[in-house]
Amino acid sequence: MGRLRRIAILGSTGSIGRQALEVIRALPNELKVVALTGNKNFALLERQINEFQPKMFYSSVKPEISCCGEFLSPEEIASHPEVDSVIIATAGNAGLGPTLAAIRAGKTIALATKEVLVMAGEIIVREASLHKAQILPIDSEHSAIWQCLQGENNKPSKLFLTASGGPFYQYSQSRLAEVTPEQALRHPVWKMGRKVTIDSATLMNKGLEVIEAHWLFSFPFDSIEILMHPQSIVHSMVEFMDGSLKAQLSWPDMRMPIQYALSYPQRWSNSELPRLDWSKIDSLSFDPVDYDRFLCLKLAIDAGKSGGTYPAVICAADEVAVELFLSHRIGFTDIAKIVKKTLGQHQNTPQPSLEEILVADAWARECATKLAADNCKEPERSGSRKIDR
Amino acid sequence: MGRLRRIAILGSTGSIGRQALEVIRALPNELKVVALTGNKNFALLERQINEFQPKMFYSSVKPEISCCGEFLSPEEIASHPEVDSVIIATAGNAGLGPTLAAIRAGKTIALATKEVLVMAGEIIVREASLHKAQILPIDSEHSAIWQCLQGENNKPSKLFLTASGGPFYQYSQSRLAEVTPEQALRHPVWKMGRKVTIDSATLMNKGLEVIEAHWLFSFPFDSIEILMHPQSIVHSMVEFMDGSLKAQLSWPDMRMPIQYALSYPQRWSNSELPRLDWSKIDSLSFDPVDYDRFLCLKLAIDAGKSGGTYPAVICAADEVAVELFLSHRIGFTDIAKIVKKTLGQHQNTPQPSLEEILVADAWARECATKLAADNCKEPERSGSRKIDR
Repeated sequence: MGRLRRIAILGSTGSIGRQALEVIRALPNELKVVALTGNKNFALLERQINEFQPKMFYSSVKPEISCCGEFLSPEEIASHPEVDSVIIATAGNAGLGPTLAAIRAGKTIALATKEVLVMAGEIIVREASLHKAQILPIDSEHSAIWQCLQGENNKPSKLFLTASGGPFYQYSQSRLAEVTPEQALRHPVWKMGRKVTIDSATLMNKGLEVIEAHWLFSFPFDSIEILMHPQSIVHSMVEFMDGSLKAQLSWPDMRMPIQYALSYPQRWSNSELPRLDWSKIDSLSFDPVDYDRFLCLKLAIDAGKSGGTYPAVICAADEVAVELFLSHRIGFTDIAKIVKKTLGQHQNTPQPSLEEILVADAWARECATKLAADNCKEPERSGSRKIDR
Repeated sequence: MGRLRRIAILGSTGSIGRQALEVIRALPNELKVVALTGNKNFALLERQINEFQPKMFYSSVKPEISCCGEFLSPEEIASHPEVDSVIIATAGNAGLGPTLAAIRAGKTIALATKEVLVMAGEIIVREASLHKAQILPIDSEHSAIWQCLQGENNKPSKLFLTASGGPFYQYSQSRLAEVTPEQALRHPVWKMGRKVTIDSATLMNKGLEVIEAHWLFSFPFDSIEILMHPQSIVHSMVEFMDGSLKAQLSWPDMRMPIQYALSYPQRWSNSELPRLDWSKIDSLSFDPVDYDRFLCLKLAIDAGKSGGTYPAVICAADEVAVELFLSHRIGFTDIAKIVKKTLGQHQNTPQPSLEEILVADAWARECATKLAADNCKEPERSGSRKIDR
């Protein structure tokens, strides 16, 4: 057994952060927490700090914690000499700066915040190559592809991203319009944060994953296909040039890809990770995706293909729209409408700098908020406010 | 592009041999035939020799071929300095000598004749290690496992061998007794030789594959599981200690694993290999196997666990019984009965030498033939002769 891997978790109070701590708790001979950062849920962060006694911490509410640890910025933590691997599990654009700091310090990055690659893929990939920093995916689909690519000498010919389809996979367009936040938050398979759960229901999440896969595996958009796979057992597949495919399978539990990003290139035994039980699995299905019903998916892939600041804009507009939906201020299908309108009003900047990306992000938040507010003056229908297409 | 790989095919007129030639024909910039050997089908061997103009050939009927090539024994061919890879695709025990000759000459061996590993796994594995010869599987299940193990640093925790179940997967025991050779030769998915097609219908083939996997991957019998998967799209799976599984998928076409054994560690594009079309695949199912209905499977696994000369005996007895079934002299369920009785009369030799294995093989052929003949004196029933259990 080698020495302990020293782990910093950025976003330890979120869903991925909490599950990462479960993995670390189960593997005390392999992993050690050296830093934790949290956002609003300070009570939980404090409990985590008391349990794991990290050397460093950060809280956006800047508390005095008497017991222990040095208060450092997320960027300082991400690039600290006593950190081996940095788990980036913050919300959206908050991951950008720390990820770049970790890359420039040559750290291993376990990336859960897909927005980092969606918004700034070109910069991230270039910097990672320059500083020989490894970016290891935590998203289950990308972890699956990455596992399937191990030991292969030739670039694959196709990536198949699987999609559970979320809770409304079978819903008609009109039925989708009536969906409530409470229904949308009930994902049939995965245990995830609120934002990504809604993104899974609109399939925006799958669209962002296509962009993430494009950057992570330097893979052309036209060779990335989506397959609806409601059982969420096959987490993605890779097709090689000889017609052979590899698939990665496991019980849908985020702790598995989290652990792999921390154990790579090894695998570790962890009795708390569930095993697939074939006697309990009926059958596995794989169907084409319906782009017409899930507009967000198409918008995201188009934004990825257009490149420039479009992907940053779609992330920001979607974050605003999902927040509005969760607070009952717009309807479910309004999310796509707000995102589409925001994209329509955007002036693209090709090959943007980090600053231009952040400007586009701020602009899109403002634009989406304004679009929603303008339209919210319309009369309410069916318990939710509607946006014109 | 490197230089051409020089391929010897032992058993070029059989099903695997013919499909190997299709692969080589499609890849003239990668592969070159330097030797062909055939058994009884001399007309086909002559046509193959005329097309591929190999430097060496062998025919068990020892013909004069005016046009070309040196007549050499299979052992001489398998160890010839002008051969890079030897495809072993002969029937049963005929592969043993040439495989050992190829191993001792340090060749790369693409192994289709599973009996070689079943009968003499311990010797083959030891010699291959000693002479640093690679044994690459052509069997689709073992190719799948081998592909899934690429790039993995840790031994897997479980192997799942998939089984199509053959044409009689849903048959009751009584209905199985009435099966004719013509029905048994109609495999629903795979294009294979007559012997292995019958072995697929009895599931003897799957049992021999378990033994093959045991030797090929140095894997304990108790961690090799069989899953019934009638669609034959997933060719096998590997479970790792962290609960992650990898599966290899492709259209059921033997040319895929044949090509991989020749291209390894690369993959080559071959437009003649079929692609999976997900729009045409309904769903994939994986069910436990019914050992009671498919006695041959259990007999084979037990023979593998007992070791010694038992695996050689089961190969030989099965070959005799299948031949008798194909010539309408015994019924389908009699195959298992003859095999079981032969095993019951065998005195095992632990850790046998090659000579002891060949003695056991000859004894089992004689014993099985005699058992069948003794029982064939009984009155005929239902169009086929029955053997007492």
